[in-house]
Amino acid sequence: MDGFDLVIRGGTVVTASDTAVADVGVRGGVIAAVGLELGRGRQEIDAAGLLVMPGGIDSHVHLAQPAFGGPAMADGFESGTRSAIAGGNTTVLPFALQGRGESLRQAVEDYHRQADGQSYCDYGFHLIVANPSAATLGQDLPALVAAGYTSLKIFMTYDDLVLNDREILEVFDAAGECGALVMVHCEGYDAIRFMTEKLERSGRMAPYYHAVSRPQTVEREAAHRAISHAELTGVPIMIVHVSGREAMEQIRWAQSRGLKIMGETCTQYISLTAEDLKGLNMDETGSKYVCSPPPRDRPSWDAIWNGIQTGVFQTFSSDHCPFYFEGEMGKKNPKARTGFRWVPNGIPGVAVRMPILWSEGVVKGRITANQFVALTSTNHARIYGLTNKGALAPGYDADIVLWDPARKVTITQALMEHGADYTPWEGFEVTGWPQATILRGEVVMEGGRILGRKDGGRFLPRAVSPMAGRMAGAPLD
Amino acid sequence: MDGFDLVIRGGTVVTASDTAVADVGVRGGVIAAVGLELGRGRQEIDAAGLLVMPGGIDSHVHLAQPAFGGPAMADGFESGTRSAIAGGNTTVLPFALQGRGESLRQAVEDYHRQADGQSYCDYGFHLIVANPSAATLGQDLPALVAAGYTSLKIFMTYDDLVLNDREILEVFDAAGECGALVMVHCEGYDAIRFMTEKLERSGRMAPYYHAVSRPQTVEREAAHRAISHAELTGVPIMIVHVSGREAMEQIRWAQSRGLKIMGETCTQYISLTAEDLKGLNMDETGSKYVCSPPPRDRPSWDAIWNGIQTGVFQTFSSDHCPFYFEGEMGKKNPKARTGFRWVPNGIPGVAVRMPILWSEGVVKGRITANQFVALTSTNHARIYGLTNKGALAPGYDADIVLWDPARKVTITQALMEHGADYTPWEGFEVTGWPQATILRGEVVMEGGRILGRKDGGRFLPRAVSPMAGRMAGAPLD
Amino acid sequence: MDGFDLVIRGGTVVTASDTAVADVGVRGGVIAAVGLELGRGRQEIDAAGLLVMPGGIDSHVHLAQPAFGGPAMADGFESGTRSAIAGGNTTVLPFALQGRGESLRQAVEDYHRQADGQSYCDYGFHLIVANPSAATLGQDLPALVAAGYTSLKIFMTYDDLVLNDREILEVFDAAGECGALVMVHCEGYDAIRFMTEKLERSGRMAPYYHAVSRPQTVEREAAHRAISHAELTGVPIMIVHVSGREAMEQIRWAQSRGLKIMGETCTQYISLTAEDLKGLNMDETGSKYVCSPPPRDRPSWDAIWNGIQTGVFQTFSSDHCPFYFEGEMGKKNPKARTGFRWVPNGIPGVAVRMPILWSEGVVKGRITANQFVALTSTNHARIYGLTNKGALAPGYDADIVLWDPARKVTITQALMEHGADYTPWEGFEVTGWPQATILRGEVVMEGGRILGRKDGGRFLPRAVSPMAGRMAGAPLD
Amino acid sequence: MDGFDLVIRGGTVVTASDTAVADVGVRGGVIAAVGLELGRGRQEIDAAGLLVMPGGIDSHVHLAQPAFGGPAMADGFESGTRSAIAGGNTTVLPFALQGRGESLRQAVEDYHRQADGQSYCDYGFHLIVANPSAATLGQDLPALVAAGYTSLKIFMTYDDLVLNDREILEVFDAAGECGALVMVHCEGYDAIRFMTEKLERSGRMAPYYHAVSRPQTVEREAAHRAISHAELTGVPIMIVHVSGREAMEQIRWAQSRGLKIMGETCTQYISLTAEDLKGLNMDETGSKYVCSPPPRDRPSWDAIWNGIQTGVFQTFSSDHCPFYFEGEMGKKNPKARTGFRWVPNGIPGVAVRMPILWSEGVVKGRITANQFVALTSTNHARIYGLTNKGALAPGYDADIVLWDPARKVTITQALMEHGADYTPWEGFEVTGWPQATILRGEVVMEGGRILGRKDGGRFLPRAVSPMAGRMAGAPLD
Repeated sequence: MDGFDLVIRGGTVVTASDTAVADVGVRGGVIAAVGLELGRGRQEIDAAGLLVMPGGIDSHVHLAQPAFGGPAMADGFESGTRSAIAGGNTTVLPFALQGRGESLRQAVEDYHRQADGQSYCDYGFHLIVANPSAATLGQDLPALVAAGYTSLKIFMTYDDLVLNDREILEVFDAAGECGALVMVHCEGYDAIRFMTEKLERSGRMAPYYHAVSRPQTVEREAAHRAISHAELTGVPIMIVHVSGREAMEQIRWAQSRGLKIMGETCTQYISLTAEDLKGLNMDETGSKYVCSPPPRDRPSWDAIWNGIQTGVFQTFSSDHCPFYFEGEMGKKNPKARTGFRWVPNGIPGVAVRMPILWSEGVVKGRITANQFVALTSTNHARIYGLTNKGALAPGYDADIVLWDPARKVTITQALMEHGADYTPWEGFEVTGWPQATILRGEVVMEGGRILGRKDGGRFLPRAVSPMAGRMAGAPLD
Repeated sequence: MDGFDLVIRGGTVVTASDTAVADVGVRGGVIAAVGLELGRGRQEIDAAGLLVMPGGIDSHVHLAQPAFGGPAMADGFESGTRSAIAGGNTTVLPFALQGRGESLRQAVEDYHRQADGQSYCDYGFHLIVANPSAATLGQDLPALVAAGYTSLKIFMTYDDLVLNDREILEVFDAAGECGALVMVHCEGYDAIRFMTEKLERSGRMAPYYHAVSRPQTVEREAAHRAISHAELTGVPIMIVHVSGREAMEQIRWAQSRGLKIMGETCTQYISLTAEDLKGLNMDETGSKYVCSPPPRDRPSWDAIWNGIQTGVFQTFSSDHCPFYFEGEMGKKNPKARTGFRWVPNGIPGVAVRMPILWSEGVVKGRITANQFVALTSTNHARIYGLTNKGALAPGYDADIVLWDPARKVTITQALMEHGADYTPWEGFEVTGWPQATILRGEVVMEGGRILGRKDGGRFLPRAVSPMAGRMAGAPLD
Repeated sequence: MDGFDLVIRGGTVVTASDTAVADVGVRGGVIAAVGLELGRGRQEIDAAGLLVMPGGIDSHVHLAQPAFGGPAMADGFESGTRSAIAGGNTTVLPFALQGRGESLRQAVEDYHRQADGQSYCDYGFHLIVANPSAATLGQDLPALVAAGYTSLKIFMTYDDLVLNDREILEVFDAAGECGALVMVHCEGYDAIRFMTEKLERSGRMAPYYHAVSRPQTVEREAAHRAISHAELTGVPIMIVHVSGREAMEQIRWAQSRGLKIMGETCTQYISLTAEDLKGLNMDETGSKYVCSPPPRDRPSWDAIWNGIQTGVFQTFSSDHCPFYFEGEMGKKNPKARTGFRWVPNGIPGVAVRMPILWSEGVVKGRITANQFVALTSTNHARIYGLTNKGALAPGYDADIVLWDPARKVTITQALMEHGADYTPWEGFEVTGWPQATILRGEVVMEGGRILGRKDGGRFLPRAVSPMAGRMAGAPLD
Repeated sequence: MDGFDLVIRGGTVVTASDTAVADVGVRGGVIAAVGLELGRGRQEIDAAGLLVMPGGIDSHVHLAQPAFGGPAMADGFESGTRSAIAGGNTTVLPFALQGRGESLRQAVEDYHRQADGQSYCDYGFHLIVANPSAATLGQDLPALVAAGYTSLKIFMTYDDLVLNDREILEVFDAAGECGALVMVHCEGYDAIRFMTEKLERSGRMAPYYHAVSRPQTVEREAAHRAISHAELTGVPIMIVHVSGREAMEQIRWAQSRGLKIMGETCTQYISLTAEDLKGLNMDETGSKYVCSPPPRDRPSWDAIWNGIQTGVFQTFSSDHCPFYFEGEMGKKNPKARTGFRWVPNGIPGVAVRMPILWSEGVVKGRITANQFVALTSTNHARIYGLTNKGALAPGYDADIVLWDPARKVTITQALMEHGADYTPWEGFEVTGWPQATILRGEVVMEGGRILGRKDGGRFLPRAVSPMAGRMAGAPLD
């Protein structure tokens, strides 16, 4: 054994289960040892008073997705991953979205073209199956799973993306065959259209009505439907971005029946409410908070915390999906033109996910620091087959965040490093902030300064998820 | 006050709430008095030892529906209503089904053409909305509700009938506007198609696989979806022919949240099981039991009884929907040709509904005689706006069944008086049987002999249901 | 058949299931006929515009109970039953409370001594078993059940009354043997003592803290415990005076598992809140609202209504239990001396039960008039074995209330006719009021004037309840 | 940094969250490093092909408890801890039971007298509060918590141990004040006595009737009661040895309401059933399986697994509580003399806990190896304040089990190393077995041979549990 390239000395090492004051020794970009009084490294970092945790893995970010006739996304890979490392993350899992008439393979190639050499952190791709043809499900999907694209997402809403129930069942079944893990956006398309048109006909067009158009009932119904399809095909699913009690309780109910249903929740569902969409007197500033599902209300925060505390949710993500408020190149804000229907759905949040969960969760006594690590890193790695990530253990990539647990920060756009021209959390106060982000042994962010390179991130082919496959006891089992 | 046309003397009068030994005096086809030692009637019936109950109202029967490319229905109005009175019923509510390209008004006219002058008992029509166009919902429906067609049914499955979620929401909303009561057949079309094709591809074609193709999960999902749409629009619904615990518990859950969701169950769900569909060694005799949802298993019977006892269900119907087993005019049995997919869904049961509920329910101590009356008559009348029916009280139509509570009968085809060439309950033993059926003061069945005339029944325009309208607290309320 | 002694003409006859405009003919104190255009009676009452309903049966009233060292009860049988008929009731079921060292037989004799010849309405007795000795359970109880005292109540709280779990189980088991129906007051003695002493030690002595000392948790725990003991012994029980969601949901849960658990709720739980116990600035006027369980809050009202609407509750009672506020014979108010612990638990309410349920329930669209009859009369009769009561049907006692459904009344002490010197509902506004009360064919109240005699009421031996006995499937079954 | 005393080389290190092939270096009895290619140790163990996991912590074992007039316990500290290390454990938490008339301090001294110098593994003590006097709760308990006895157990059943509700509330409240963590044995004393006497009176005396005398209803009721008392006082509790669905669902319900209720389950509830208590034709061999709560049935196993998988349970213990079957010194078997009531409640199991959980859980795909570590070690350490235990991380005690994941073993008495003269799992086949147990760096068991010394274990004063204290929102908060 030679010496270490890097030793992070004297910090408090926090894993998803354990806490210890120790040194972390890195060699060849990999954690070589966690120990007491480790030998010198060529580089040394004094981590006294800091927490040493696995770098954040955000398994739900949208980068460089196309406009669909709407506005361009505010982040490509460069700015999006720059924001990610600013926020303590070392891996992101964006989506390779199958465009109209496009094969899944083409989609993957497209996104690689945009991402490769343009990413500050490591990355993999979830597939988005928008056209579940026989060729897609029977040929492309198995091949892509074998090539390390081992998860896919489907949508139960959005024009150009929504699948009908038959298609959902076929996707689930195909995923069960080839071991892809399925993520589901649960909101009912038809119900939203129905509500939207009702609201429009009565002149209720402000961004706030986005929230009214898709109440929890709509999310709950879709969650129940997805669970039922999962039960019928015997295929585990991850229900993403759960916003409140209604859908959460469906997942709990399914889990209590022995079904392998997982749940994800996001920053906005413990820190924003539908009231934010009202902006200033129902004006267009409310569009800064438009995402789907919409943030709900404070009792929903309690419901989400209960879901986190009792294990209903396994992952906490950002659902980073950034758009411009004022518009790019001087164009008018595209998010609040003529009605909430036209406001693109999504908010930027990859940089604030970890600070807000720490501040609202650990500092306020709702979760432990170990749970924080599980929710922001380890569980993402395990569930999505990132076999070298999410742990501070020998042989794992030296992806590390040094965390200052007591630092008080007021969130502002200047800190975000993202492409969007605002943050929904402007002025939000947190305790706890990433002091440095280390990617495979390289310090890529320190004290808010970005030190990494835009070609520093690597593509991560992923293993088949241990959660994927078939549940026992399905009707045709 | 003159004398009575008819006095039913000395029986035990059972209403949905009360029981009394009394005479019932009829005048002008209407109940004129229930009392002790009433004066003589021109006609007298000695009812000592018998129960005198409101004639059965079966609010869920299918008569004379078209073939949709499949086999003709085995009952038109003449044979179907003949079977109804044989089984103690005095009113049936069949459906006026909107055919492809047909208006609702035309559908109603078509069915009147078949029913008027051809019915042994009184009847009204539920509408079946298969094409919820703006004209249908905005013009025909309100007009028909005003004309006494105050309920409608929609389907979540079946080719030519299934509505998508948007259509369901529009129907619910329109029904809320005009006061139509909505009945929903809850099974998910896409899931059934998915399962069916899976089964077919693996050569599982026998009638039994009909049950496998639509497990309780499929019914539950659709029930949850319908409930969610009802919640979103604020419109009460009746979920019909619930078959087991899964869908039942969805209704209970909705009711416990204050939603106006009603439930109906049927004879087959307390007396048949999916095992019956196996026939003799998986042969085509199993097709005699093919209906949708399919009968489940014995634990499901218990679940259904619990739903009856705790008020989850308000009505108990037959879902009479008869087809020929051997086939008409010498043609081969159409119900089991080349695969379960082609077996028409439905079984004849209007004649056995009351005996089986009495025998399994009252005789076995699961319900009281009063509950029997509520479940077979009174609740149907109240929910569906039959203001002169369902009660043994002055001013109500003298629709009466004289019930022999202790008579033991083995059910056979010969007793059914229906058009189908079999009964699924052949050999089923019951205690309790209708001794006579009286329609508006006329004895139309006695001791198994049909005494009524095929033009004895009248069309019943119905009042708006007291259950219909809007619930408070809907999202756009 | 001769003529009628009394004909109530042209009213709207409302039973627990049916509604009809009809005449009611009475002969020999019994309903002889309900019919159209009945012949003349020696007495005629014009009931046009009024509802003709079964007289109220209040199955939960406390009269003439001893002081237990505290203040005397404000109503004996004379004033208590006078108040009952003022409020539209024709039967009450008070309690024969077994005193310390007293046999159940002696208790019954004691109460007969006080009641016989002193009651304006008919009455029976529930037994209160305070000392479940072998002699009590093995000899007295069966003998008293055979003599028509077919129900008993036990307490899970109150000094001198509380039974421990072993005693509860023995009582349940004995009741199952002899067919007594068991009513249970569900609040946990030890928890209340614990809370009370905590409050007292911190100087929180005002009447309001009565409510704080027994939160819903305490009621729910006791309800769960009683249900478990019922399940273990296989004996049905009635959980009385349920105050809110927590205990209600326990009953629903038990019913959904097939257990024969019944529920009762009371006027105060849909019309008063714990805020009322605060009086004027936390003064002793709050003691006017002290009862157990205490009234809760407005969301609890919604929970209770949901329980009523979905059939969790079968009966609606007053739990009339009157005490003086100012004190009798000039003594100081006994209800708020030195701390809430010493305030006697109970409020007078037999006169307002029916008006408040009608006004809050029927007028506000929460229940139908038929449900009103079931909840205030018919279900009490059926459950407690009053075989000649609770129905407007031939042969039943002519116990009738003529109800003015639209009359607006502001409740005041002057209208109550009870012994207490206040009513908790002073100033409460209702729509709907009893116009006349008829007991076995005699008008005993009309237009607020008491016309009956204090010896007009009869003792009612009761049949064994059809709900009593053993449930199938108990562990030792 | 010097070299290592011991290096465990090349094993697969499994923590409660992470898995890595790595070396573990030990120095001074403490883990000094977990790393790749660590330097030489004075002692080296080749762990290739083995799992390196934290030594088992069994937080629920009974050792050296007095006879209470019944038979002596079969294990004192020497044999009990010898069995523990044979089964891969390095720490046990037995109980210091407060005897009649004894102070808690005396109890602790008594147990120290028996344990100190007589233990093969490390140990701490839970207190058993049998006499919750003011002195016990106000003085002894806080002092003992401060001295490292930071948890206590109470019983809701058993003569000499059972507390009434008032006592339970006082204990909870006192524990909330001083930060003791409360464990509760949830079975209702009175209900068990009631059932037992019923069974005895009918001659049902065989050991099997032990199970009949305490059905799940009895356990569920007590669990609900304990939860309610915890809610009332705002004090978290751990419900121990949960046996089936009924009590499990109470815990889940409490957790879903935000209450801090924890749950423990045990080996017997996933591997034995009440059928085992039948022995051979209902003979006394059934007494080998008598424990409380009794094992239930196979569906209960599924329920317990669901509770494990969804996080309802945090710890998996043995509830080791050994008695002799044949009897000591030739005396007749004390466990089946004259009736099940006299059979001492408890079975030996500390040696089989880890193998059976591994075999039934990890090998059969129900849990991961990481969950195994959490359930058998890490969670016990965290919950019970063992700050240096339960992790393979620098600075933690080098308590390690080397696990052979594929070894097939048939359990026999010869392998148990305990004092009892039988094992209930005789003949039970498992896959996975401890190859070596290492206590603070010393190999105390290897290949089934006990290498440790009976004075090798140390007493562990414990920190206050992070779970203890007060919940927000309690009624008197």
